Amino acid sequence: MSQCKPYVIGIDMGGTNTEVAVVDTRGKITASATFKTCDCLEFEDFVLSVGKACRRVMGEVGGPQMITGVGIGAPNANFYTGNIENAANLPWKGVLPLGERLSDVLDLPVAVTNDANAAAIGEMTYGAARGLRDFIMITLGTGLGAGIVINGELVYGSDGYAGELGHVKIRRGGRKCGCGQNGCLETYCSASGVARTAVEFLNTRSDDSLLRQSDPSAITSKDVYEAAMKGDALAKEVFEFTGNLLGEALADFVCFSAPEAIILFGGLAQAGNLLFDPVKRSMEENLLPIWKDKVSLVSSSLKLSEAAVLGAAALGWKAK
Amino acid sequence: MSQCKPYVIGIDMGGTNTEVAVVDTRGKITASATFKTCDCLEFEDFVLSVGKACRRVMGEVGGPQMITGVGIGAPNANFYTGNIENAANLPWKGVLPLGERLSDVLDLPVAVTNDANAAAIGEMTYGAARGLRDFIMITLGTGLGAGIVINGELVYGSDGYAGELGHVKIRRGGRKCGCGQNGCLETYCSASGVARTAVEFLNTRSDDSLLRQSDPSAITSKDVYEAAMKGDALAKEVFEFTGNLLGEALADFVCFSAPEAIILFGGLAQAGNLLFDPVKRSMEENLLPIWKDKVSLVSSSLKLSEAAVLGAAALGWKAK
Repeated sequence: MSQCKPYVIGIDMGGTNTEVAVVDTRGKITASATFKTCDCLEFEDFVLSVGKACRRVMGEVGGPQMITGVGIGAPNANFYTGNIENAANLPWKGVLPLGERLSDVLDLPVAVTNDANAAAIGEMTYGAARGLRDFIMITLGTGLGAGIVINGELVYGSDGYAGELGHVKIRRGGRKCGCGQNGCLETYCSASGVARTAVEFLNTRSDDSLLRQSDPSAITSKDVYEAAMKGDALAKEVFEFTGNLLGEALADFVCFSAPEAIILFGGLAQAGNLLFDPVKRSMEENLLPIWKDKVSLVSSSLKLSEAAVLGAAALGWKAK
Repeated sequence: MSQCKPYVIGIDMGGTNTEVAVVDTRGKITASATFKTCDCLEFEDFVLSVGKACRRVMGEVGGPQMITGVGIGAPNANFYTGNIENAANLPWKGVLPLGERLSDVLDLPVAVTNDANAAAIGEMTYGAARGLRDFIMITLGTGLGAGIVINGELVYGSDGYAGELGHVKIRRGGRKCGCGQNGCLETYCSASGVARTAVEFLNTRSDDSLLRQSDPSAITSKDVYEAAMKGDALAKEVFEFTGNLLGEALADFVCFSAPEAIILFGGLAQAGNLLFDPVKRSMEENLLPIWKDKVSLVSSSLKLSEAAVLGAAALGWKAK
């Protein structure tokens, strides 16, 4: 029955914006709407805003009777429980029953997953990972997230939290992480990690850099990227340093699941060869001989803004 | 058809001994035979010896018509190809077509996997992991191997080599590993790693130890264990050190697949609390808050000699 309905709704919930889209069976976005997540004072306001946006986009394709299901990717969301659990980047705290409330409000089947997993599903369904059965998608945003696919299936683990690769320790006793531990991968290999490295370099070195014109507390990974593109040596070294650590970590991840490819995604991945060259070199240097030159390192082929919403939509086909 | 035959053959191929057993549907070993792997000068001699041993044990249950299939766990064996590929601990080099040759000689379906995966399947089918859908089995022998189970299925990865957790880097630039890299987990956390740590401690410290009575080049993990059981402080510290590193590594592995349990198996795991206490403490210290006190650390419940042969047998039911 429900499989015959020609559309799904994909929702990408971010800390700042939430995007809602109606997607057809071929992955085409037919209608979409966006609203500010942070304008919703209470979680319940957010639920009502999602409901409103969904009704608007469904209206453009003939209403709810045309929709098979709804998929939503959200920070710290759990596939098994449908809850958002203690998300650091959302204004509402505690455990939020996202799946249950959306399913009440929309009267449609809803499937929930976290944002990194949604992006991995998007990439597998419509992007660079089409046809791959074993890959790891690394999302390099403010933090570092991962979606791990083994044998064509996303890995959720026993509790829905598998793929927290941002919290693998890459430097024992290293940088303090928001999780309370030290040396976590995301304290180095993420947009905020790049900014942190730049500030460390500026503070501990005396060589010239375009970045010295900026207030250190305001430096972003974008500033570092722009300086590096202008040939700034210090900024280029920041990317070398970041890529080196990420390559080391990726070689360890390969030991785990022997993927055919690793896909880098997110704002920082757009730095292109500045990041990819050192990551690739460092990964190859650290791989066991059996894997040398065998694991592709590729960039996401989806638009940054579309991967998560398309992945969430792909999940919507399976919502129950 | 074939599912009706009441027995399988499980084969555990080690560098020293090979054990062949007929196993019934309930995991009971009905007949078994052992021969010395290292007595076989050529790989083809080994194939013929396996054939002979299989015919002997099959004879005790009514012959090959009673056998559904054959499973074999072997060092560096690949589930997908059925080949042994460049095994360091076997007398024959290169790529050995184990599955193909055994299937020729026995005229039965044969399934091949590596020894750590066979042990994980044994544990899942008959041991401490019965009923678990997400666990990691760590085998602590001469090296460190792993069998990773996600959603009730063993992870082979894109090429059959998933689970090479002995080669995750636990100390960048650390001990030289047989694989050509430095700082691999198995250079610290394995029987040989324990012996290496003991020798390092003896060489760099001056405190008394029972181990000083031994020739340093001949110290084994068993010597360290026995000294520790007699209260030797240095030997106990060797286990603390080993457990500490292993706990750090396990906390990283949890980030990957969020298992409900980690099972330690193999000679070194028999050191009991000497090893388990520091591993557990270190793992808990390094876990993300969401996993604290949630991941069981357990000892294999199978006899050392039986896990691999039972796991291989369990694989035999699915041989095609």
